[in-house]
Amino acid sequence: MIIDCHGHYTTAPARHNAWRDAQVAAIDTGGDINPAYPAISDDEICETIEANQLRLLRERGADMTIFSPRASAMAPHVGSEAVARIWARRSNDLIKRVIDLYPETFAGVCQLPQSPGISIAHSIDELERCVTDLGFIGCNLNPDPSGGKFNSPPLTDRAWYPFFEKMVELDVPAMIHVSGSCNPAMHATGAYYIAADTIAFMQFLEGDLFRDFPDLRFIIPHGGGAVPYHWGRYRGLADMLKRPPLAEHVMKNVFFDTCVYHQPGIDLLFNVIDVDNILFGSEMVGAVRGIDPETGQYFDDTKRYVDALDISEADKRKVFEGNARRVYPRLDAQLAARGL
Amino acid sequence: MIIDCHGHYTTAPARHNAWRDAQVAAIDTGGDINPAYPAISDDEICETIEANQLRLLRERGADMTIFSPRASAMAPHVGSEAVARIWARRSNDLIKRVIDLYPETFAGVCQLPQSPGISIAHSIDELERCVTDLGFIGCNLNPDPSGGKFNSPPLTDRAWYPFFEKMVELDVPAMIHVSGSCNPAMHATGAYYIAADTIAFMQFLEGDLFRDFPDLRFIIPHGGGAVPYHWGRYRGLADMLKRPPLAEHVMKNVFFDTCVYHQPGIDLLFNVIDVDNILFGSEMVGAVRGIDPETGQYFDDTKRYVDALDISEADKRKVFEGNARRVYPRLDAQLAARGL
Repeated sequence: MIIDCHGHYTTAPARHNAWRDAQVAAIDTGGDINPAYPAISDDEICETIEANQLRLLRERGADMTIFSPRASAMAPHVGSEAVARIWARRSNDLIKRVIDLYPETFAGVCQLPQSPGISIAHSIDELERCVTDLGFIGCNLNPDPSGGKFNSPPLTDRAWYPFFEKMVELDVPAMIHVSGSCNPAMHATGAYYIAADTIAFMQFLEGDLFRDFPDLRFIIPHGGGAVPYHWGRYRGLADMLKRPPLAEHVMKNVFFDTCVYHQPGIDLLFNVIDVDNILFGSEMVGAVRGIDPETGQYFDDTKRYVDALDISEADKRKVFEGNARRVYPRLDAQLAARGL
Repeated sequence: MIIDCHGHYTTAPARHNAWRDAQVAAIDTGGDINPAYPAISDDEICETIEANQLRLLRERGADMTIFSPRASAMAPHVGSEAVARIWARRSNDLIKRVIDLYPETFAGVCQLPQSPGISIAHSIDELERCVTDLGFIGCNLNPDPSGGKFNSPPLTDRAWYPFFEKMVELDVPAMIHVSGSCNPAMHATGAYYIAADTIAFMQFLEGDLFRDFPDLRFIIPHGGGAVPYHWGRYRGLADMLKRPPLAEHVMKNVFFDTCVYHQPGIDLLFNVIDVDNILFGSEMVGAVRGIDPETGQYFDDTKRYVDALDISEADKRKVFEGNARRVYPRLDAQLAARGL
């Protein structure tokens, strides 16, 4: 089976987005930041999924997507903690509806109610609700809820520990994922995402987080940002900074997806990163939706690039399925319960 | 001949660094921010160069380095505009002494007196002094003088135009290069440098700078940050954002160096980026000074990686010499005057 570990509901029904617009508008006017939520029908949801994610999954030959709210719309820097809390809950509830409609195709990953300057401990309740009550299998953790100021403590700081303790207790991983940029000099998907991925990895390299949390697991998306391309730099920096080799210091706990939108990038990823650390992902209907004139195929059809690799079938099974089931044990349990 | 386009004077004499310490100390105490500069002898300078850059150049079989003040020490966020102006001048004068001692081996690139929130127009005088009076061939332009806040306008903003006009008039390129990070969550050489490189490229992609300045040239160091690894993403984003293809929109004016510290990264760079856009560089005695246990060679001995490429001798000559002479016309003129 082929599991895409990285999908966002970028095609959410217009009325869901309109609700968010009304919420944001209420911030400035002092209106109700929890306006009445529209009665979105199952049909409306099915239309948005079947014309997009489900169609493309089938066309490309994949089976499942680990699915979360639209990343660029999380926007934790907009409004207060209460705004973020309500918005996260609405977004996660919508993901739950998708899962209930297509339980064989989607598994849920939640948006967290983060806010700049607010303790990550305040996000624990929503994580627990999503995992325990809604059956979600992981979360998206934003290392920079400021929207581009990079003014949070590094992920290795003890300020994050209460949340990590809960992640370990629930046995769920987090994908490190920033949201929209509020900096006009930093494009969200072209600059901010890739920069944040790279910065997060370097934080793990500098710190000792996995000594304290040997079972904590993170997925750094977008192929690990710049890291595989600069793998020699990072191995060398670990040496310069007197850190242990990356294989034992970071790579027991950190995984990269395959959201790299051309064959040479995927080739490099598999050349330098152990296959056990790579999860198939596409972030389809996301940052780059067009067709590559050089190949005639969608840029984000990353399955084609993985299919084209000269690696063993056993390794491909790891990347397409095994690693995801290992990194997301709750997904593995759900699949096992279905006899898969 | 083999020209390394990316070297910093990371081994400057201790008394030069002590002068800077005294300057910085004076900021807080209200003391003299332009204390007496020590009488550093030629021998002191020669010692620092011959034991390091010159030795390694010879060992590795290169001929020249395009040389500038230590990037991480530029620290434009420290102190006032006057502090930055005096510090840049001291640093550039020291580079000039290195060049005068080894005129066949080093060509100068200047540090600019930038400060957060201060117009880049204030940097024009020092650029002009370095190029016209000292014979320098280019400059290092810091896109984020805040030291990690990324709060400057994008490089495509008209705020930068007065400086770009002077660059074109003098026919000198700029290497885009941030300095030390004042953000504990963002390691300078492992996170900030690579993030800033990537962000700068995306700014060029989004904007129309080279329509206004068809002769302006930039080198994005560290192999172009994350860009070659995500070349499909950037080609796809250009398409999504209705920009022209990158080859005509950006790559007539933007060049990447080879500061990528492992063979697979260099292989990827040459696989996806036109050879006319790649300049040999090592940033030796810089971010990563150790020996790669996988190869037994210095991580930053990037000449080995280029030597190992399966490309034509003509292409290697472009990367080692021709492209640098084209991008830095004043270097070409200096070499031609020496019959080279």
